[in-house]
Amino acid sequence: ALALALPVLAQEDPLPSWNEGAAKTAILEFVDKVTAEGAPTYVAPEDRIATFDNDGTLWVEHPIYTQLVFALDRVKQLAPEHPEWATTQPFQAVLEQDVKALAEAGEKGLMEIIGATHGGMTTEAFEAEVTDWIATARDPRWNKPYTGLVYQPMLELMDYLRANGFETYIVSGGGIEFMRPWTQAVYGVPPQNVVGSSIKTEYKVVDGKGVLMRLPEINFVDDKAGKPVGILSHIGKRPIAAFGNSDGDYQMLEYTTLGAEGARLGMIVHHTDAAREYAYDRDTHIGRLDKAMDDAPKQGWVLIDMAKDWKTVFPE
Amino acid sequence: ALALALPVLAQEDPLPSWNEGAAKTAILEFVDKVTAEGAPTYVAPEDRIATFDNDGTLWVEHPIYTQLVFALDRVKQLAPEHPEWATTQPFQAVLEQDVKALAEAGEKGLMEIIGATHGGMTTEAFEAEVTDWIATARDPRWNKPYTGLVYQPMLELMDYLRANGFETYIVSGGGIEFMRPWTQAVYGVPPQNVVGSSIKTEYKVVDGKGVLMRLPEINFVDDKAGKPVGILSHIGKRPIAAFGNSDGDYQMLEYTTLGAEGARLGMIVHHTDAAREYAYDRDTHIGRLDKAMDDAPKQGWVLIDMAKDWKTVFPE
Ligand SMILES: [Ca+2]
Ligand SMILES: [Ca+2]
Repeated sequence: ALALALPVLAQEDPLPSWNEGAAKTAILEFVDKVTAEGAPTYVAPEDRIATFDNDGTLWVEHPIYTQLVFALDRVKQLAPEHPEWATTQPFQAVLEQDVKALAEAGEKGLMEIIGATHGGMTTEAFEAEVTDWIATARDPRWNKPYTGLVYQPMLELMDYLRANGFETYIVSGGGIEFMRPWTQAVYGVPPQNVVGSSIKTEYKVVDGKGVLMRLPEINFVDDKAGKPVGILSHIGKRPIAAFGNSDGDYQMLEYTTLGAEGARLGMIVHHTDAAREYAYDRDTHIGRLDKAMDDAPKQGWVLIDMAKDWKTVFPE
Repeated sequence: ALALALPVLAQEDPLPSWNEGAAKTAILEFVDKVTAEGAPTYVAPEDRIATFDNDGTLWVEHPIYTQLVFALDRVKQLAPEHPEWATTQPFQAVLEQDVKALAEAGEKGLMEIIGATHGGMTTEAFEAEVTDWIATARDPRWNKPYTGLVYQPMLELMDYLRANGFETYIVSGGGIEFMRPWTQAVYGVPPQNVVGSSIKTEYKVVDGKGVLMRLPEINFVDDKAGKPVGILSHIGKRPIAAFGNSDGDYQMLEYTTLGAEGARLGMIVHHTDAAREYAYDRDTHIGRLDKAMDDAPKQGWVLIDMAKDWKTVFPE
């Protein structure tokens, strides 16, 4: 019996980049509970919905959102047609590379820039632009592509959940069409499992093909109380696990865990590692974590201490 | 070799409720083309997206949309609180069971009724109401539940496509939350694969739980040029097969097939069978089929002649 039991005891760690501790234990225990057939905490596979914020939860968001770096290139390209941008925020900030003013413009400012710079083309042309940019642009601190600055422990977590019958979704304040071209390759999340902010689109026939034109107008902001709205619209089911890193994820975490019967998991990536990544929480304009951190104990949300809980941060 | 080949030749007909003919052949040839590895028409499984209209394509829509029958009950319930409805269309039509005036109000009228009668409750309360209603309400002509009035040949078609690696989606002008509670059981389509019209929702905490309140305001109309918009938003991929029955599906069919490289399939259920179901096309306010029928030959869309192409209409 000992010999037979050994392979089970010796099974591979599904989360090798996580140090032992409260965060890793919370994940393993939660998955055990919802997959234990016959247990009162068992959840059928079709209801194993896990939602992940993107910026700061799955990839680096400091010093500014990656999508804003992308937008900067677009603003520069389009600036000659928009002389008024030289004195209008948040465009002025982009043109002057004024990080502080950009940060102050917040997610609303990001949405304005996206509305103004990401419109006027078909969704397929936009996809091609994103695909080109993401393949060539590099973060200056690490001199790596942005898709190389995803968090290895979170990739393992997504794999582990999928291996246990979960469907994984991204639910991000970022633009849905900015993420879709690369989420399958980078996260294993297909386009239809990406929920995000969007601009309005209009269907028309151009050059003998039906296309969707991107209009310079915000359609939906998938942040804060918008996240549960986006989840309902795209998934139509309440998640049983949610992962975020800022107050923008408060309502998604709450929607997932508050007053639920059975096992639920809410986790917050806490950026505590200035050496390997960044350290910030209450005192930042990008990914501010304040109320969600205060309320985590009473809400039962588990903080992930990047410095302590993660053996490695980025994929090798 | 003959003996070995026999099981293949003798394989079961995947579409037993379809008579031999152009419609059935179009389906079988299309699936062969996109699944033939190495062929220029091959499509990878993750891109085998098929979209289905619901009303009149997957289930009966005459004499009035099933969702309108549901709405009628809600209007009656709520009428005492809305004395103005007695003289305001389309509510007056509902209260007076005036089928003609209801039909004239069209999908826009349906949306008004939904906005006014489907709001003011949580999504979960609404789901419970739909679930109760769909289990008990019966169509008077057949004295059957509405979910018994789905088209058996279309169920077989959906199964056949899924067996060949397709992902099947519903893309309907009907309310997304009206369909989701029963599409898995009836069509094998899970909630996250349902695209439809919607009303606005607002996230809030009620009685210690995060809920989405349904507001009496239209958010999105998933009809005509709205269908490609809904497809982009929810799926993020262009379908390679689309199935509809009215001019409301024109743009979805066009988005799927027009100017495409490779094999594409656009089909239109033509209601030609007054004996077994209904016969209508240009001359109806519910599911009008006019321009899409005129343009079918030049667009390469295949009409499904219900009377000729279907051996049986409803599940036994
Ligand atoms: Ca974030
Ligand atoms: Ca229809």
